Amino acid sequence: MRIDIITLLPELLRSPFEASILKRAIDKGLVEVHLHDLREYGLGNYKQVDDYQFGGGAGMVLMIEPIDNCISKLKKERDYDEVIYLTPDGETLTQPKANELSLKKNLILLCGHYKGVDQRVRDHFVTKEISIGDYVLSGGELAAAVLCDAVIRLIPGVLNNETSALTDSFQDNLLAPPVYTRPAEYKGLQVPDILLGGNTPKIESWREQKALENTRKKRPDLLKD
Amino acid sequence: MRIDIITLLPELLRSPFEASILKRAIDKGLVEVHLHDLREYGLGNYKQVDDYQFGGGAGMVLMIEPIDNCISKLKKERDYDEVIYLTPDGETLTQPKANELSLKKNLILLCGHYKGVDQRVRDHFVTKEISIGDYVLSGGELAAAVLCDAVIRLIPGVLNNETSALTDSFQDNLLAPPVYTRPAEYKGLQVPDILLGGNTPKIESWREQKALENTRKKRPDLLKD
Repeated sequence: MRIDIITLLPELLRSPFEASILKRAIDKGLVEVHLHDLREYGLGNYKQVDDYQFGGGAGMVLMIEPIDNCISKLKKERDYDEVIYLTPDGETLTQPKANELSLKKNLILLCGHYKGVDQRVRDHFVTKEISIGDYVLSGGELAAAVLCDAVIRLIPGVLNNETSALTDSFQDNLLAPPVYTRPAEYKGLQVPDILLGGNTPKIESWREQKALENTRKKRPDLLKD
Repeated sequence: MRIDIITLLPELLRSPFEASILKRAIDKGLVEVHLHDLREYGLGNYKQVDDYQFGGGAGMVLMIEPIDNCISKLKKERDYDEVIYLTPDGETLTQPKANELSLKKNLILLCGHYKGVDQRVRDHFVTKEISIGDYVLSGGELAAAVLCDAVIRLIPGVLNNETSALTDSFQDNLLAPPVYTRPAEYKGLQVPDILLGGNTPKIESWREQKALENTRKKRPDLLKD
Protein backbone atom coordinates (compact mmCIF):
# COMPACT_ATOMS: atom_id res chain seq x y z
CA MET A 1 0.00 0.00 0.00
CA ARG A 2 1.10 3.56 -0.74
CA ILE A 3 -0.25 6.62 1.07
CA ASP A 4 0.43 10.18 -0.09
CA ILE A 5 -0.38 12.86 2.45
CA ILE A 6 -0.81 16.45 1.29
CA THR A 7 -0.32 18.86 4.17
CA LEU A 8 0.80 22.36 5.11
CA LEU A 9 2.57 20.90 8.17
CA PRO A 10 4.63 17.88 7.12
CA GLU A 11 6.82 18.41 10.21
CA LEU A 12 3.84 17.72 12.46
CA LEU A 13 3.55 14.27 10.93
CA ARG A 14 7.17 13.21 11.15
CA SER A 15 7.34 11.56 14.57
CA PRO A 16 4.19 9.42 14.32
CA PHE A 17 5.69 7.74 11.27
CA GLU A 18 9.10 7.37 12.86
CA ALA A 19 7.91 5.35 15.85
CA SER A 20 5.91 2.32 16.72
CA ILE A 21 3.97 0.14 14.35
CA LEU A 22 3.89 2.69 11.55
CA LYS A 23 7.66 2.78 11.38
CA ARG A 24 7.86 -1.00 11.54
CA ALA A 25 5.39 -1.36 8.67
CA ILE A 26 7.38 1.13 6.59
CA ASP A 27 10.69 -0.59 7.42
CA LYS A 28 9.25 -3.96 6.43
CA GLY A 29 8.21 -2.51 3.07
CA LEU A 30 4.53 -3.22 3.76
CA VAL A 31 3.53 0.39 3.27
CA GLU A 32 5.03 3.58 1.82
CA VAL A 33 4.01 6.93 3.27
CA HIS A 34 4.97 10.10 1.41
CA LEU A 35 4.48 13.56 2.84
CA HIS A 36 3.89 16.41 0.38
CA ASP A 37 4.31 19.97 1.55
CA LEU A 38 1.44 21.94 0.02
CA ARG A 39 3.52 25.09 0.40
CA GLU A 40 5.77 23.88 -2.43
CA TYR A 41 2.76 24.13 -4.73
CA GLY A 42 1.88 27.64 -3.50
CA LEU A 43 1.40 30.54 -5.89
CA GLY A 44 3.77 33.41 -6.62
CA ASN A 45 6.86 34.57 -4.78
CA TYR A 46 5.20 34.09 -1.39
CA LYS A 47 4.03 30.56 -2.22
CA GLN A 48 0.51 31.54 -1.30
CA VAL A 49 -1.76 28.62 -0.39
CA ASP A 50 -4.74 30.29 1.31
CA ASP A 51 -6.88 33.37 1.11
CA TYR A 52 -9.87 35.04 2.80
CA GLN A 53 -13.25 33.44 2.27
CA PHE A 54 -15.69 34.92 -0.20
CA GLY A 55 -18.62 36.52 1.57
CA GLY A 56 -16.59 37.47 4.62
CA GLY A 57 -16.03 35.77 7.95
CA ALA A 58 -13.18 34.58 10.19
CA GLY A 59 -10.65 31.99 9.09
CA MET A 60 -8.61 31.40 5.94
CA VAL A 61 -9.49 28.89 3.21
CA LEU A 62 -7.02 26.72 1.29
CA MET A 63 -7.08 27.64 -2.42
CA ILE A 64 -8.00 25.24 -5.19
CA GLU A 65 -5.00 25.77 -7.48
CA PRO A 66 -2.11 24.56 -5.27
CA ILE A 67 -4.14 21.49 -4.29
CA ASP A 68 -5.04 20.78 -7.91
CA ASN A 69 -1.39 21.08 -8.90
CA CYS A 70 -0.24 18.63 -6.23
CA ILE A 71 -3.01 16.07 -6.81
CA SER A 72 -2.62 16.27 -10.60
CA LYS A 73 1.11 15.62 -10.33
CA LEU A 74 0.54 12.53 -8.17
CA LYS A 75 -2.21 11.23 -10.45
CA LYS A 76 0.10 11.43 -13.44
CA GLU A 77 2.49 9.06 -11.66
CA ARG A 78 -0.03 6.36 -10.67
CA ASP A 79 -3.71 5.57 -10.24
CA TYR A 80 -5.31 6.24 -6.88
CA ASP A 81 -8.17 4.30 -5.32
CA GLU A 82 -9.35 7.29 -3.34
CA VAL A 83 -8.57 10.96 -2.70
CA ILE A 84 -9.61 11.33 0.93
CA TYR A 85 -10.26 14.68 2.59
CA LEU A 86 -10.10 14.63 6.39
CA THR A 87 -12.92 16.82 7.66
CA PRO A 88 -15.24 16.82 10.68
CA ASP A 89 -18.28 16.72 8.36
CA GLY A 90 -17.10 13.63 6.48
CA GLU A 91 -18.40 10.10 7.05
CA THR A 92 -17.35 8.90 10.48
CA LEU A 93 -14.42 6.47 10.56
CA THR A 94 -15.34 3.05 11.95
CA GLN A 95 -13.50 -0.24 12.20
CA PRO A 96 -15.30 -1.74 9.15
CA LYS A 97 -14.27 1.34 7.13
CA ALA A 98 -10.67 0.95 8.31
CA ASN A 99 -10.81 -2.73 7.27
CA GLU A 100 -12.06 -1.71 3.82
CA LEU A 101 -9.37 0.94 3.33
CA SER A 102 -6.64 -1.52 4.39
CA LEU A 103 -7.32 -3.44 1.15
CA LYS A 104 -6.62 -0.42 -1.11
CA LYS A 105 -3.43 0.08 -3.06
CA ASN A 106 -2.91 3.84 -3.41
CA LEU A 107 -4.50 6.55 -1.31
CA ILE A 108 -4.15 10.32 -1.24
CA LEU A 109 -4.98 12.00 2.09
CA LEU A 110 -5.63 15.74 2.00
CA CYS A 111 -5.29 17.63 5.28
CA GLY A 112 -7.34 20.79 5.68
CA HIS A 113 -6.33 23.77 7.79
CA TYR A 114 -7.94 26.92 9.15
CA LYS A 115 -11.51 27.04 7.79
CA GLY A 116 -10.85 24.13 5.40
CA VAL A 117 -10.46 23.87 1.63
CA ASP A 118 -12.31 25.62 -1.17
CA GLN A 119 -15.55 23.70 -1.73
CA ARG A 120 -14.65 23.15 -5.40
CA VAL A 121 -11.78 20.90 -4.26
CA ARG A 122 -14.29 18.77 -2.37
CA ASP A 123 -16.78 18.71 -5.24
CA HIS A 124 -14.33 17.86 -8.01
CA PHE A 125 -11.10 16.29 -6.71
CA VAL A 126 -12.03 14.51 -3.48
CA THR A 127 -13.63 11.05 -3.76
CA LYS A 128 -14.22 10.37 -0.06
CA GLU A 129 -14.54 12.57 3.03
CA ILE A 130 -13.67 11.05 6.38
CA SER A 131 -14.09 12.34 9.93
CA ILE A 132 -12.33 10.61 12.80
CA GLY A 133 -15.00 11.86 15.25
CA ASP A 134 -17.50 14.57 16.21
CA TYR A 135 -15.02 17.20 17.32
CA VAL A 136 -12.94 19.84 15.61
CA LEU A 137 -9.15 19.71 15.33
CA SER A 138 -6.81 22.51 14.34
CA GLY A 139 -5.98 20.70 11.11
CA GLY A 140 -6.33 17.43 9.27
CA GLU A 141 -2.84 16.17 10.13
CA LEU A 142 -3.64 14.29 13.34
CA ALA A 143 -6.76 12.88 11.69
CA ALA A 144 -4.57 11.63 8.82
CA ALA A 145 -2.14 10.05 11.29
CA VAL A 146 -5.03 8.34 13.10
CA LEU A 147 -6.47 7.06 9.83
CA CYS A 148 -3.04 5.73 8.78
CA ASP A 149 -2.54 3.97 12.11
CA ALA A 150 -6.02 2.39 12.10
CA VAL A 151 -5.56 1.18 8.52
CA ILE A 152 -1.88 0.21 8.44
CA ARG A 153 -2.03 -2.02 11.53
CA LEU A 154 -4.58 -4.17 9.68
CA ILE A 155 -2.27 -4.94 6.76
CA PRO A 156 -1.18 -8.59 7.11
CA GLY A 157 2.34 -8.84 8.53
CA VAL A 158 2.29 -5.47 10.32
CA LEU A 159 1.29 -6.72 13.76
CA ASN A 160 3.53 -9.41 15.18
CA ASN A 161 0.59 -11.57 16.07
CA GLU A 162 -2.28 -11.36 13.63
CA THR A 163 -4.81 -12.81 16.02
CA SER A 164 -4.18 -9.73 18.09
CA ALA A 165 -6.03 -7.44 15.66
CA LEU A 166 -8.87 -9.92 15.22
CA THR A 167 -9.70 -9.92 18.93
CA ASP A 168 -9.71 -6.11 19.20
CA SER A 169 -12.74 -4.10 20.20
CA PHE A 170 -15.26 -3.50 17.37
CA GLN A 171 -14.11 -6.35 15.09
CA ASP A 172 -17.04 -8.45 16.34
CA ASN A 173 -19.31 -5.58 17.49
CA LEU A 174 -18.23 -6.18 21.08
CA LEU A 175 -15.91 -4.23 23.32
CA ALA A 176 -12.90 -6.13 24.60
CA PRO A 177 -13.09 -8.00 27.94
CA PRO A 178 -10.88 -6.83 30.85
CA VAL A 179 -7.25 -7.99 30.85
CA TYR A 180 -4.90 -8.58 33.77
CA THR A 181 -1.22 -9.33 34.14
CA ARG A 182 1.25 -10.05 36.93
CA PRO A 183 1.30 -9.69 39.88
CA ALA A 184 -1.86 -11.59 40.86
CA GLU A 185 -2.11 -9.35 43.91
CA TYR A 186 -0.96 -5.73 44.10
CA LYS A 187 -1.54 -3.71 47.27
CA GLY A 188 -4.56 -5.86 48.06
CA LEU A 189 -6.02 -5.64 44.53
CA GLN A 190 -6.65 -9.14 43.18
CA VAL A 191 -6.88 -10.63 39.71
CA PRO A 192 -10.17 -12.61 39.29
CA ASP A 193 -9.59 -16.23 40.39
CA ILE A 194 -10.93 -17.70 37.18
CA LEU A 195 -8.04 -16.25 35.15
CA LEU A 196 -5.49 -17.90 37.44
CA GLY A 197 -7.06 -21.37 37.27
CA GLY A 198 -5.88 -22.42 33.82
CA ASN A 199 -9.27 -23.78 32.71
CA THR A 200 -9.26 -22.45 29.15
CA PRO A 201 -12.90 -23.15 28.16
CA LYS A 202 -14.10 -21.52 31.40
CA ILE A 203 -11.81 -18.53 30.80
CA GLU A 204 -13.12 -18.16 27.24
CA SER A 205 -16.73 -18.12 28.36
CA TRP A 206 -15.91 -15.67 31.18
CA ARG A 207 -14.29 -13.37 28.59
CA GLU A 208 -17.27 -13.59 26.25
CA GLN A 209 -19.62 -12.79 29.10
CA LYS A 210 -17.49 -9.83 30.25
CA ALA A 211 -17.22 -8.49 26.68
CA LEU A 212 -20.99 -8.63 26.40
CA GLU A 213 -21.46 -7.01 29.83
CA ASN A 214 -18.98 -4.23 28.94
CA THR A 215 -20.74 -3.57 25.67
CA ARG A 216 -24.22 -3.59 27.23
CA LYS A 217 -23.10 -1.17 29.93
CA LYS A 218 -20.95 1.24 27.94
CA ARG A 219 -22.09 0.96 24.32
CA PRO A 220 -25.51 -0.67 23.98
CA ASP A 221 -25.75 0.95 20.51
CA LEU A 222 -23.17 -1.55 19.18
CA LEU A 223 -25.50 -4.47 19.99
CA LYS A 224 -28.45 -3.10 18.02
CA ASP A 225 -27.37 -4.19 14.52
CA MET B 1 -3.83 24.27 31.92
CA ARG B 2 -1.30 21.52 32.50
CA ILE B 3 -1.42 18.14 30.76
CA ASP B 4 0.80 15.21 31.78
CA ILE B 5 0.96 12.38 29.27
CA ILE B 6 2.17 8.96 30.40
CA THR B 7 3.38 6.93 27.44
CA LEU B 8 5.76 4.20 26.31
CA LEU B 9 6.46 6.20 23.16
CA PRO B 10 7.17 9.82 24.08
CA GLU B 11 9.13 10.20 20.82
CA LEU B 12 5.93 9.54 18.84
CA LEU B 13 4.35 12.58 20.46
CA ARG B 14 7.17 15.06 19.94
CA SER B 15 6.34 16.54 16.56
CA PRO B 16 2.61 17.18 17.11
CA PHE B 17 3.56 19.40 20.06
CA GLU B 18 6.35 21.11 18.16
CA ALA B 19 4.17 22.39 15.34
CA SER B 20 1.02 24.32 14.69
CA ILE B 21 -1.44 25.51 17.28
CA LEU B 22 -0.22 23.22 20.04
CA LYS B 23 3.25 24.71 19.86
CA ARG B 24 1.85 28.23 19.76
CA ALA B 25 -0.30 27.56 22.84
CA ILE B 26 2.73 26.18 24.70
CA ASP B 27 4.93 29.10 23.60
CA LYS B 28 2.30 31.59 24.79
CA GLY B 29 2.25 29.90 28.19
CA LEU B 30 -1.43 29.01 27.84
CA VAL B 31 -0.79 25.31 28.35
CA GLU B 32 2.02 23.08 29.61
CA VAL B 33 2.37 19.60 28.18
CA HIS B 34 4.74 17.16 29.88
CA LEU B 35 5.62 13.77 28.44
CA HIS B 36 6.49 11.00 30.90
CA ASP B 37 8.25 7.90 29.62
CA LEU B 38 6.60 4.95 31.36
CA ARG B 39 9.76 2.93 30.74
CA GLU B 40 11.54 5.03 33.38
CA TYR B 41 9.12 3.60 35.93
CA GLY B 42 9.67 0.02 34.72
CA LEU B 43 10.66 -2.78 37.09
CA GLY B 44 14.07 -4.38 37.55
CA ASN B 45 17.18 -4.18 35.43
CA TYR B 46 15.18 -4.50 32.23
CA LYS B 47 12.74 -1.77 33.20
CA GLN B 48 9.86 -4.15 32.55
CA VAL B 49 6.51 -2.46 31.91
CA ASP B 50 4.37 -5.24 30.44
CA ASP B 51 3.73 -8.95 30.78
CA TYR B 52 1.58 -11.73 29.31
CA GLN B 53 -2.10 -11.67 30.19
CA PHE B 54 -3.47 -13.99 32.83
CA GLY B 55 -5.61 -16.69 31.31
CA GLY B 56 -3.64 -16.74 28.06
CA GLY B 57 -4.16 -15.04 24.71
CA ALA B 58 -2.28 -12.83 22.26
CA GLY B 59 -0.97 -9.40 23.19
CA MET B 60 0.93 -7.97 26.15
CA VAL B 61 -0.67 -5.99 28.99
CA LEU B 62 0.82 -2.94 30.75
CA MET B 63 1.49 -3.74 34.42
CA ILE B 64 -0.10 -1.87 37.31
CA GLU B 65 3.04 -1.06 39.32
CA PRO B 66 4.95 1.19 36.88
CA ILE B 67 1.76 3.11 36.14
CA ASP B 68 0.95 3.44 39.85
CA ASN B 69 4.47 4.73 40.50
CA CYS B 70 4.24 7.37 37.78
CA ILE B 71 0.73 8.56 38.67
CA SER B 72 1.50 8.63 42.41
CA LYS B 73 4.58 10.76 41.82
CA LEU B 74 2.59 13.27 39.78
CA LYS B 75 -0.25 13.36 42.30
CA LYS B 76 2.19 14.22 45.07
CA GLU B 77 3.20 17.32 43.14
CA ARG B 78 -0.29 18.69 42.43
CA ASP B 79 -3.99 17.85 42.34
CA TYR B 80 -5.45 16.53 39.13
CA ASP B 81 -8.98 17.06 37.86
CA GLU B 82 -8.98 13.80 35.92
CA VAL B 83 -6.80 10.80 35.16
CA ILE B 84 -7.91 9.94 31.64
CA TYR B 85 -7.23 6.61 29.99
CA LEU B 86 -7.44 6.64 26.19
CA THR B 87 -9.17 3.44 25.10
CA PRO B 88 -11.54 2.41 22.30
CA ASP B 89 -14.13 1.29 24.87
CA GLY B 90 -14.19 4.62 26.73
CA GLU B 91 -16.89 7.28 26.33
CA THR B 92 -16.75 8.74 22.84
CA LEU B 93 -15.12 12.16 22.56
CA THR B 94 -17.51 14.84 21.31
CA GLN B 95 -17.25 18.61 20.96
CA PRO B 96 -19.24 19.26 24.18
CA LYS B 97 -16.84 16.95 26.06
CA ALA B 98 -13.86 18.77 24.58
CA ASN B 99 -15.42 22.07 25.69
CA GLU B 100 -15.81 20.71 29.21
CA LEU B 101 -12.23 19.43 29.41
CA SER B 102 -10.89 22.77 28.15
CA LEU B 103 -12.03 24.28 31.49
CA LYS B 104 -9.93 21.90 33.63
CA LYS B 105 -6.66 22.82 35.28
CA ASN B 106 -4.58 19.64 35.51
CA LEU B 107 -5.08 16.47 33.50
CA ILE B 108 -3.20 13.19 33.33
CA LEU B 109 -3.53 11.25 30.07
CA LEU B 110 -2.55 7.59 30.14
CA CYS B 111 -1.74 5.95 26.80
CA GLY B 112 -2.31 2.21 26.52
CA HIS B 113 -0.37 -0.10 24.28
CA TYR B 114 -0.62 -3.66 22.98
CA LYS B 115 -3.69 -5.24 24.64
CA GLY B 116 -4.10 -2.27 27.03
CA VAL B 117 -3.50 -1.80 30.75
CA ASP B 118 -4.19 -4.12 33.68
CA GLN B 119 -7.87 -3.72 34.56
CA ARG B 120 -6.98 -2.76 38.14
CA VAL B 121 -5.42 0.45 36.81
CA ARG B 122 -8.75 1.30 35.17
CA ASP B 123 -10.77 0.38 38.25
CA HIS B 124 -8.65 2.21 40.82
CA PHE B 125 -6.52 4.98 39.26
CA VAL B 126 -8.37 6.14 36.18
CA THR B 127 -11.24 8.61 36.65
CA LYS B 128 -12.38 8.92 33.03
CA GLU B 129 -12.02 6.72 29.94
CA ILE B 130 -12.17 8.39 26.56
CA SER B 131 -12.32 6.98 23.04
CA ILE B 132 -11.69 9.22 20.06
CA GLY B 133 -13.80 6.94 17.84
CA ASP B 134 -15.02 3.41 17.05
CA TYR B 135 -11.77 2.05 15.67
CA VAL B 136 -8.63 0.54 17.14
CA LEU B 137 -5.24 2.24 17.09
CA SER B 138 -1.86 0.69 17.81
CA GLY B 139 -1.60 2.75 21.00
CA GLY B 140 -3.11 5.63 22.92
CA GLU B 141 -0.55 8.20 21.78
CA LEU B 142 -2.35 9.50 18.70
CA ALA B 143 -5.61 9.52 20.65
CA ALA B 144 -3.91 11.62 23.33
CA ALA B 145 -2.59 14.01 20.68
CA VAL B 146 -6.06 14.33 19.17
CA LEU B 147 -7.62 14.97 22.58
CA CYS B 148 -4.99 17.63 23.34
CA ASP B 149 -5.55 19.36 20.01
CA ALA B 150 -9.36 19.34 20.36
CA VAL B 151 -9.13 20.71 23.92
CA ILE B 152 -6.20 23.12 23.69
CA ARG B 153 -7.54 25.01 20.66
CA LEU B 154 -10.59 25.94 22.76
CA ILE B 155 -8.56 27.68 25.48
CA PRO B 156 -9.13 31.44 25.10
CA GLY B 157 -6.17 33.08 23.37
CA VAL B 158 -4.96 29.97 21.55
CA LEU B 159 -6.68 30.62 18.22
CA ASN B 160 -5.88 33.97 16.67
CA ASN B 161 -9.51 34.69 16.07
CA GLU B 162 -11.81 33.34 18.73
CA THR B 163 -14.90 33.58 16.60
CA SER B 164 -13.23 31.02 14.39
CA ALA B 165 -13.75 28.22 16.94
CA LEU B 166 -17.30 29.31 17.68
CA THR B 167 -18.38 28.88 14.07
CA ASP B 168 -16.85 25.39 13.75
CA SER B 169 -18.85 22.30 12.99
CA PHE B 170 -20.63 20.77 16.01
CA GLN B 171 -20.58 23.88 18.21
CA ASP B 172 -24.22 24.53 17.29
CA ASN B 173 -25.16 20.96 16.30
CA LEU B 174 -24.76 21.90 12.64
CA LEU B 175 -22.03 21.03 10.16
CA ALA B 176 -20.22 24.01 8.65
CA PRO B 177 -21.48 25.56 5.39
CA PRO B 178 -19.24 25.37 2.28
CA VAL B 179 -16.44 27.93 1.98
CA TYR B 180 -14.81 29.40 -1.11
CA THR B 181 -11.84 31.62 -1.80
CA ARG B 182 -10.14 33.23 -4.77
CA PRO B 183 -10.19 32.86 -7.72
CA ALA B 184 -13.92 33.26 -8.41
CA GLU B 185 -13.48 31.06 -11.44
CA TYR B 186 -10.96 28.24 -11.81
CA LYS B 187 -10.92 26.10 -14.95
CA GLY B 188 -14.62 26.79 -15.42
CA LEU B 189 -15.54 26.05 -11.79
CA GLN B 190 -17.45 28.98 -10.32
CA VAL B 191 -17.97 30.31 -6.82
CA PRO B 192 -21.73 30.76 -6.08
CA ASP B 193 -22.82 34.25 -7.15
CA ILE B 194 -24.36 35.08 -3.80
CA LEU B 195 -20.95 35.02 -2.06
CA LEU B 196 -19.55 37.53 -4.55
CA GLY B 197 -22.38 40.05 -4.17
CA GLY B 198 -21.47 41.55 -0.80
CA ASN B 199 -25.01 41.38 0.61
CA THR B 200 -24.13 40.24 4.13
CA PRO B 201 -27.63 39.39 5.44
CA LYS B 202 -28.32 37.34 2.28
CA ILE B 203 -24.96 35.60 2.64
CA GLU B 204 -25.68 34.77 6.28
CA SER B 205 -29.03 33.23 5.47
CA TRP B 206 -27.50 31.28 2.55
CA ARG B 207 -24.86 29.92 4.94
CA GLU B 208 -27.44 28.92 7.54
CA GLN B 209 -29.48 27.16 4.89
CA LYS B 210 -26.42 25.34 3.51
CA ALA B 211 -25.31 24.30 7.01
CA LEU B 212 -28.76 22.86 7.62
CA GLU B 213 -28.79 21.12 4.21
CA ASN B 214 -25.32 19.65 4.83
CA THR B 215 -26.36 18.37 8.24
CA ARG B 216 -29.63 16.92 6.96
CA LYS B 217 -27.86 15.14 4.13
CA LYS B 218 -24.74 13.89 5.91
CA ARG B 219 -25.56 13.72 9.60
CA PRO B 220 -29.31 13.78 10.27
CA ASP B 221 -28.55 12.28 13.70
CA LEU B 222 -27.14 15.65 14.85
CA LEU B 223 -30.53 17.32 14.32
CA LYS B 224 -32.46 14.87 16.50
CA ASP B 225 -31.64 16.37 19.90
